[in-house]
Amino acid sequence: MTDKIAAIILAAGKGTRMKSDLHKVLHPIAGRPMLLHLVASVGELSPQRTITVVGAGREQVEAAVAPHGVEIAHQAEQLGTGHAVRMAEDALAGFNGDVLILYGDVPLVSPETMTRMLDRLHADDAPAAVVLGFRPTDPGAYGRIIADRDGWIEKMVEYKDATVAERAETLCNSGLMAARANDLFALLGRVTNDNAAGEYYLPDIVMLAAADGRPSAVIETDAHEVAGVNSRAELARLERDWQDKRRDTAMADGVTLIAPETVWFSYDTQLGRDVTVEPNVVFGPGVTIADKVVIHAFSHLEGATVASGASVGPYARLRPGAVLEEDARIGNFVEMKKAVLGKGAKASHLTYLGDASVGAGANIGAGTITCNYDGFLKYQTVIGEGAFIGSNSALVAPVTIGDGALVAAGSVVTRDVEADALALARGEQKALPGWAKRFRAKMAERKGKK
Amino acid sequence: MTDKIAAIILAAGKGTRMKSDLHKVLHPIAGRPMLLHLVASVGELSPQRTITVVGAGREQVEAAVAPHGVEIAHQAEQLGTGHAVRMAEDALAGFNGDVLILYGDVPLVSPETMTRMLDRLHADDAPAAVVLGFRPTDPGAYGRIIADRDGWIEKMVEYKDATVAERAETLCNSGLMAARANDLFALLGRVTNDNAAGEYYLPDIVMLAAADGRPSAVIETDAHEVAGVNSRAELARLERDWQDKRRDTAMADGVTLIAPETVWFSYDTQLGRDVTVEPNVVFGPGVTIADKVVIHAFSHLEGATVASGASVGPYARLRPGAVLEEDARIGNFVEMKKAVLGKGAKASHLTYLGDASVGAGANIGAGTITCNYDGFLKYQTVIGEGAFIGSNSALVAPVTIGDGALVAAGSVVTRDVEADALALARGEQKALPGWAKRFRAKMAERKGKK
Amino acid sequence: MTDKIAAIILAAGKGTRMKSDLHKVLHPIAGRPMLLHLVASVGELSPQRTITVVGAGREQVEAAVAPHGVEIAHQAEQLGTGHAVRMAEDALAGFNGDVLILYGDVPLVSPETMTRMLDRLHADDAPAAVVLGFRPTDPGAYGRIIADRDGWIEKMVEYKDATVAERAETLCNSGLMAARANDLFALLGRVTNDNAAGEYYLPDIVMLAAADGRPSAVIETDAHEVAGVNSRAELARLERDWQDKRRDTAMADGVTLIAPETVWFSYDTQLGRDVTVEPNVVFGPGVTIADKVVIHAFSHLEGATVASGASVGPYARLRPGAVLEEDARIGNFVEMKKAVLGKGAKASHLTYLGDASVGAGANIGAGTITCNYDGFLKYQTVIGEGAFIGSNSALVAPVTIGDGALVAAGSVVTRDVEADALALARGEQKALPGWAKRFRAKMAERKGKK
Repeated sequence: MTDKIAAIILAAGKGTRMKSDLHKVLHPIAGRPMLLHLVASVGELSPQRTITVVGAGREQVEAAVAPHGVEIAHQAEQLGTGHAVRMAEDALAGFNGDVLILYGDVPLVSPETMTRMLDRLHADDAPAAVVLGFRPTDPGAYGRIIADRDGWIEKMVEYKDATVAERAETLCNSGLMAARANDLFALLGRVTNDNAAGEYYLPDIVMLAAADGRPSAVIETDAHEVAGVNSRAELARLERDWQDKRRDTAMADGVTLIAPETVWFSYDTQLGRDVTVEPNVVFGPGVTIADKVVIHAFSHLEGATVASGASVGPYARLRPGAVLEEDARIGNFVEMKKAVLGKGAKASHLTYLGDASVGAGANIGAGTITCNYDGFLKYQTVIGEGAFIGSNSALVAPVTIGDGALVAAGSVVTRDVEADALALARGEQKALPGWAKRFRAKMAERKGKK
Repeated sequence: MTDKIAAIILAAGKGTRMKSDLHKVLHPIAGRPMLLHLVASVGELSPQRTITVVGAGREQVEAAVAPHGVEIAHQAEQLGTGHAVRMAEDALAGFNGDVLILYGDVPLVSPETMTRMLDRLHADDAPAAVVLGFRPTDPGAYGRIIADRDGWIEKMVEYKDATVAERAETLCNSGLMAARANDLFALLGRVTNDNAAGEYYLPDIVMLAAADGRPSAVIETDAHEVAGVNSRAELARLERDWQDKRRDTAMADGVTLIAPETVWFSYDTQLGRDVTVEPNVVFGPGVTIADKVVIHAFSHLEGATVASGASVGPYARLRPGAVLEEDARIGNFVEMKKAVLGKGAKASHLTYLGDASVGAGANIGAGTITCNYDGFLKYQTVIGEGAFIGSNSALVAPVTIGDGALVAAGSVVTRDVEADALALARGEQKALPGWAKRFRAKMAERKGKK
Repeated sequence: MTDKIAAIILAAGKGTRMKSDLHKVLHPIAGRPMLLHLVASVGELSPQRTITVVGAGREQVEAAVAPHGVEIAHQAEQLGTGHAVRMAEDALAGFNGDVLILYGDVPLVSPETMTRMLDRLHADDAPAAVVLGFRPTDPGAYGRIIADRDGWIEKMVEYKDATVAERAETLCNSGLMAARANDLFALLGRVTNDNAAGEYYLPDIVMLAAADGRPSAVIETDAHEVAGVNSRAELARLERDWQDKRRDTAMADGVTLIAPETVWFSYDTQLGRDVTVEPNVVFGPGVTIADKVVIHAFSHLEGATVASGASVGPYARLRPGAVLEEDARIGNFVEMKKAVLGKGAKASHLTYLGDASVGAGANIGAGTITCNYDGFLKYQTVIGEGAFIGSNSALVAPVTIGDGALVAAGSVVTRDVEADALALARGEQKALPGWAKRFRAKMAERKGKK
C-alpha cells in the first residue's frame, strides 16, 4: 500500500426519499453524522486529502466537515458518478497517489476494508482499479460484476442492461473503488454519457482500462458493510446494525447488558470492565465509564465521566460536564450539568446540580436545587467535603457551603455557610387549630352549591 | 359499489382465554378498543347502520360504542355465527342495501379491503356473497375455501369436516363476508344446525346460494390483516403489527425514529416533517407534533400539542391540555397538564405546570411547582411574558406573575406579582457556627452506644 | 423415584470469557445469580444434600449459597468433569441415594426435567445412569450420544474423537446426569485420564458401566433448557429466553403487556389478573401486584406491594418497603421507600416518600419531600387520614401530621401538626416594584461590556 492516499466522498445525491431539510449525509447514526463516520474511518488511513463532492445543500455539508479538514468540491449538475468524481480533479491537481472513492450515504465501510482495497491495488499483479463487491441476500437491481475465480473483472453491467445470465450473477457492485489518481482521471476523461440515462458512469473506467489491456480486480465484503441509506427506514436499519455490533463488543469486553437491545451507545462511548448496564439506557456523545460502575435503568448520559465503583440512576440524567468521582452515587430523577460529585458523595433523589462542585462524602438531600442562573449568567455552587444539604433546599449561586457544614431542610441559602456551621433559612411554623376542618366545610358547601 | 351499507360486527364470543373482566373486544390496541378500530374503519365507508351483536358484557360494549352511533343487538345464547348475524335482522328491517359481516376480535381489517369486498359483490358477474380469504403461514385448523382460479367458491368446509385433499388447500376463511341484506337473511333462514356442534354456521349460506345456482366469490387479503385476538399474547402481537406499520409510515413521511421498535404511537398520533423521536417514547391519544420538533428519550405524551421547533424531554410528561408554542422547551422530569408554554419559553427541570399559562420567553426555574389544587378545586397560574421564576419556587394559585417580573429562588408566592417587580417570599438565613460539628460528635457518640 | 437425592453442581470453570471479577455462576438472570436458579429448581425435589464444586473464587460462591444450605467442595486443580464430581465424594460419604449432576453455568434446567431423569433411573429396566441429551439447531462441537430408538446408549463420544458418521448424529450430550451414588463413585474410581487432554471425563462412566453389562439411558429435552453461559452475550441470551417465557406466562394468566419485549420481570414477580403493564417497566426482586392494577410506562419497582385497583407511574420508582393500599395512586417522578400509601391516597408528582406512612385518602402535593435522614439516622413521617400536604412542602421527620390536617404549600414542617389544623411554615412575601426591570438593564449592560 502506498503512503499517499486521497479520499473522494460522493455526496451530491438529492436524498428526496428522506423528506428532510437536513442533507442526507448529515443524518446521524450513533450520534454522529453519516458523513463523519466515513471521514473518521478514512482518517485511520491518514489520507493526505479528503474531498467531499456536494450538490445542493453545500453549506450544510461544508459546515459539518470543515472542522475535520475535509474539502468541498461542487457538482452543480447531477450528471452521474463519473462526472461527480471528476469534480474533485482540480482539487487533486498534482496529487499522484491512490484515490479511494466512497459514498456519503454508505457510511459504515471499515478502515480495514479500505485498506484491503488499497493493498489489492498494489499487489504484484497491479490491477488498474479495485472494485468493492458484495453478495446481498436479494441482488435485486444492483449492478452486477462478472469476474473470474481470481477476482479479475470481465464485465461490469448495470442491472437494466444485463442479460438474464448476467442477472443470475450474485456479485454486486457497491460503487466503492480504488485507483491511482493518474489512471482514474485519465480514464474518466474518456468516459462518455452515451447511454439511456445520459450519465457518465464511474464503473465504465473498468471496461476502458480492460480495453487497454489493464484488467481490474474485485474484492468482496459483507453486504451489511456497504448498506446504503436512502430513506429514514434504512437509516434506522443502519443504526440498529451499528448498535448491535457495539453491544456485542461491549459484552465481549466484559460489560453486562441485561437487555442489550435496549441500550443505545454513541460512536465514542467508553466502558470499563464489570460495568453493568440495566435495561433502557441512552448514551449520548462523550461518555466515559470506568470499571465496576452500575448504570441503572432509564438513565441518559452525555458528556459525562463516571469513575470506578460509582452508581448512576435509575432515571439519572448526566449532561455534559457531569463528573462522578469514585463510588459517588446519583439516584432517581437527578440531573447533573457541569458538576462534579466527589468521591463517595451522594445525590439520591429529585435534585438538580448545575455548575456545582460537591466535595467527597457530601450528602445532597432529596429535592435540592442549585439555583445557578439569573436569566443572564450562570454561577457556581461549591459544597465542601462532608457537608450535608437538607432536603428541599435551594442553594442560590454563587454560594459556598463549607466543609462539614449542614444546611437545614427546606432552606433557601443565599449567603456562604462557613465550615461546620448550621445554616437555617426557612419560615417559622405557625398553627391554626381547626382551620382545615372549617375550610373543608366551607368548600364542601361551595361545591354543593355549584 | 352500492351507496347503502350496513355493518354487522359480531362480538358475542366469551373471550375466556383473555382471563379478563373487560369484554374482549374492548381491550385496546394503540390506545383504542379493538371494536372501535373496526367502527372507525367501517366508518370510512359511511355506513347507514352499524350493529354490534353482543352476548355477555353487553353493558360494557354498549357504553363504549354508544357515542359512535353504533347499535347493539343481543345474542342471548351462543348458537353459532349464522345465528349471531340473524340477531341483527330485526334492527335491519327495511334495509335493502349491502351488509358487511365483521368480527370485533378481528379489528385491523382496512377500509380498503372492505371496499374491495363490496366492489366484488357488485361486479357484473354478481356473486351471491363475497368471502374474505387469506393464506396463513400455517393454515392449521382454519376452515378451508375450495375455489377455482377466478375465485368462484366450490366449497367451504370446516377443518374438522375436511378431507385430506381439502386440508391441503391453503386458502382459509377469515369469516368476513359481504352480501345483499335480502339475500343474507333469506339464506340464513334456511341454515340449519344439523351438525356435530349443533350450531348455525354463517358460511353455510354460500353452499345454499350455490345450490340455487348463485355462486359466491372469494377475494384474498394478507393474513396479518385478518389476524384475530383470542388471548393477551395475540393482543400483544396485533399491537406490535399495528405499531410496526405506523412506525414505517412515520419514517416514510420524514420522521426520524432512532430506534423505531421503542416508540409507541396511538391510533391518532400526528407528526410533522423532520421530527426526531429518540428511543423510548410513548404517545398516548390526542397528540399533535409539528415540524422540526425533537422528542427526547423517555418522554410520555398524551393530549398534547407541540408547535414547530419545540423540544421535549428527556423524561418529559405532557398530559392532556399541554401546549408548547413555537421553540418552547420542556426538559427533564417536567410535567405539564392543562398548561400553555409560550413561544420560546422554557421549563427545563423538575417542574410541575398544571392549570397554567406561561408567556413567551419566560423562564421557569428548576423545581418550580404550580400549586393548583386545594383538595377541592383547581386554580390558574398566569405567568407573564419574559418573567423569570427562580428555582424551587411554589406559585400558589390563583396567582398572576406579571410580564417581566422576577420571583426570587425558593419563594412561596401567594399574592400576585406586578409586572417588572421582584417578589421574595422566603425565610431569613441564620447561621449557627460550629453547630454541625457538635451535632456530628453527638450523633457519632449515640450511634456508638447503640 | 427414590426419596433420597443429592445434587452436585459443578462450578469450577474459570469463566475467562466473562472477563469479570465476579464468579461466572454468580452472574444474575432475572435478578438472581445463575447458581441460585439451579439451587431453587433442585430445591423443589427436596434434596438431602446440595454440594457445589468450586475452584477459584470459592469465597464468593460460598457467601452466595451459604444461606441456602448448600455445601461447598473444592477442586484445586481443573482435571476434568469426572475429577470435579469426585471432589464431592467425601461430603457424600454414607449417602446411598441418587445423585443429580448439574452445572452452575447451565442454570435453567427445570425441576420437571430433573424429576424425569430420576424417574428414568428408577424405571424397571434400571439403567446404570441417565444422561440428559438435546438436539441443538447446530450440533457443532458438542459431544455426541449414539443411542438406539429406546434411548439405550451405545456410545458417548467427544466431538474431536468422533467419526464422520458419529458427527452426523444430532443428539448431543448436555453433561447433566443422574446415577446412584454408589454406582457413580465406584465407576468414577475407574475412570482414567488416558486421553489427549489428560482429563478425567464424567461421560466415561457410561462406557465403563456398559462394559459391565449395565447400559445407560438418554432422555431428551429442549436445547433452550440446557443452554450454557460462557460469555456475557450468552448470559444476555438466557436472560431474554427467561424473560420471554415469563412474559408469555403473565399474558396467559390474564395480564396485558402492551409491549411484552419491554417488560423485565424478576424471578419472583407476582402479578394479579387484569393487571396492565405499559411499555418499559422493570420489576426488581420482591414485587407483588394485585388485580386490576395499572403500571404505567417507565416505572421501576422492587420490594413493593401494590394492592388492587392502584395506579403506578409513569416514571414511578417503588423501592423496598413501598406499599400501596387499594386504589392508591403514585404518579410521575415519585419515589417511595419503606412507605405505606393508604387506601385511595395520592402522591402524583415529584415527591419523595421515605420512612413514611400516609393515611387513607390523604393527598400529597407535587414536590413534597419527607426529610427522613440527618446524615446519621432515619426518622418516620406519619401523615393522617384525609390530610392534605400542600405542594413543595418539606416534612422534617420525625413528624406527625394529624388526620384531616392541612399543610400550606411551600411549608417546612418541623413540628407535629394536630388533626384538622392548618400549618404554615414559610416566609412572608415582599415585593420590590420595578426591581426586575432595573436588574435586566444592569445585566444587559454588563453582558454588553463583556
